[in-house]
Amino acid sequence: MKRTVVLLSGGLDSATVLAIARAKNFETYALSFRYGQRHEREIAAAEKVARSLGSTEHRIAGIDLRLFGGSALTGDLEVPTGRSESEMAGEIPITYVPARNTIFLSYALAWAEILRAQDIFIGANAIDYSGYPDCRPEFIRAFEQLANLATRAGVEGKHFRIHAPLIALSKAEIIQRGMSLGVDYALTHSCYDPTAEGLACGLCDSCQLRLKGFREAGLTDPIAYAR
Amino acid sequence: MKRTVVLLSGGLDSATVLAIARAKNFETYALSFRYGQRHEREIAAAEKVARSLGSTEHRIAGIDLRLFGGSALTGDLEVPTGRSESEMAGEIPITYVPARNTIFLSYALAWAEILRAQDIFIGANAIDYSGYPDCRPEFIRAFEQLANLATRAGVEGKHFRIHAPLIALSKAEIIQRGMSLGVDYALTHSCYDPTAEGLACGLCDSCQLRLKGFREAGLTDPIAYAR
Repeated sequence: MKRTVVLLSGGLDSATVLAIARAKNFETYALSFRYGQRHEREIAAAEKVARSLGSTEHRIAGIDLRLFGGSALTGDLEVPTGRSESEMAGEIPITYVPARNTIFLSYALAWAEILRAQDIFIGANAIDYSGYPDCRPEFIRAFEQLANLATRAGVEGKHFRIHAPLIALSKAEIIQRGMSLGVDYALTHSCYDPTAEGLACGLCDSCQLRLKGFREAGLTDPIAYAR
Repeated sequence: MKRTVVLLSGGLDSATVLAIARAKNFETYALSFRYGQRHEREIAAAEKVARSLGSTEHRIAGIDLRLFGGSALTGDLEVPTGRSESEMAGEIPITYVPARNTIFLSYALAWAEILRAQDIFIGANAIDYSGYPDCRPEFIRAFEQLANLATRAGVEGKHFRIHAPLIALSKAEIIQRGMSLGVDYALTHSCYDPTAEGLACGLCDSCQLRLKGFREAGLTDPIAYAR
């Protein structure tokens, strides 16, 4: 079985990606980050998802993106709520964490090289996160090129592949794909700003995109919401 | 004054790079990493170098590369000593830390984006570190392309530049350049495996390259060696 590193946030998208990698018969090494998020719920969700989908290993890298500041997701700015779709579209949201996917993929590359794996899976999505520069197909391709120049494996003529199987899917399509692969979305966590009890707020961009995805897929989101 | 992020290890090369960036009239933001090195001396050296060369800021990012293992520099393997030049050449040394420069540049990119800087300086050198895949000019160019796709600034049409002014210089040339810019090499630290008292071993690849560089430059290395 070929090994692969899968970036796993504990959210809906990366859980689906892990299921896709398993369905493609990869031995999966899941990688999560503790990066100064507002909450630890994402990590707990990632652990449950990794276990339920049969990851061979799950490691959590502690990285301090708060060192630089500059994003609502690292606690420097306020998370926006109740925005309409048109308000979400066409701009880079303040929840964008500068260079986050570049950093995440760099760590995945380090681990992949040590595992002698040549495949990395990431749940980047260019549809719902159209405002994030590092969720675009051209970014993924550029990282793949970099990976082949950055590593021992590349020097030895091996070819890295960065898989972003969700890149062109709508949230509804992602959910349908995950359901067909047996993903238990009750284990996942998407909210940018959960209550003290850990309930999803239902109002931030991430909750709204998730709820709309389930609605459009004709399904009910199994997680609880504060409202 | 334009801002730039300078990767600063506390070694001879990156101290020279910081001096070059200052000489080019950049306002410099120095970035070091605590990454599970065998010792803290590098960080202490980086602090002194940043201060002596007038960095506007110096931040230290704690990242745990030991999480993945696989390198002598993160304590998993033994640092080789007493190797001849031919033994050092033509292979990837076990002191190579997988994807290290990719990770370092990713952090620099995050900080640069927050500072609205479009320049990053790195002391990569393709001559003495010919075995490190991520010290090659093609790696630097690939990261520059990635930077322009990964960031808000890139989306807005701004162009990132990754400066690697030492990439084609010999160690002797680097030292001569640094001396002409007033770098105090007594503050720098290069040894992979210093004694408990913090003295450079004089035997590891890094010490040997450094000593040879000073010799070829017709200068005396101002730091103390254990032997």
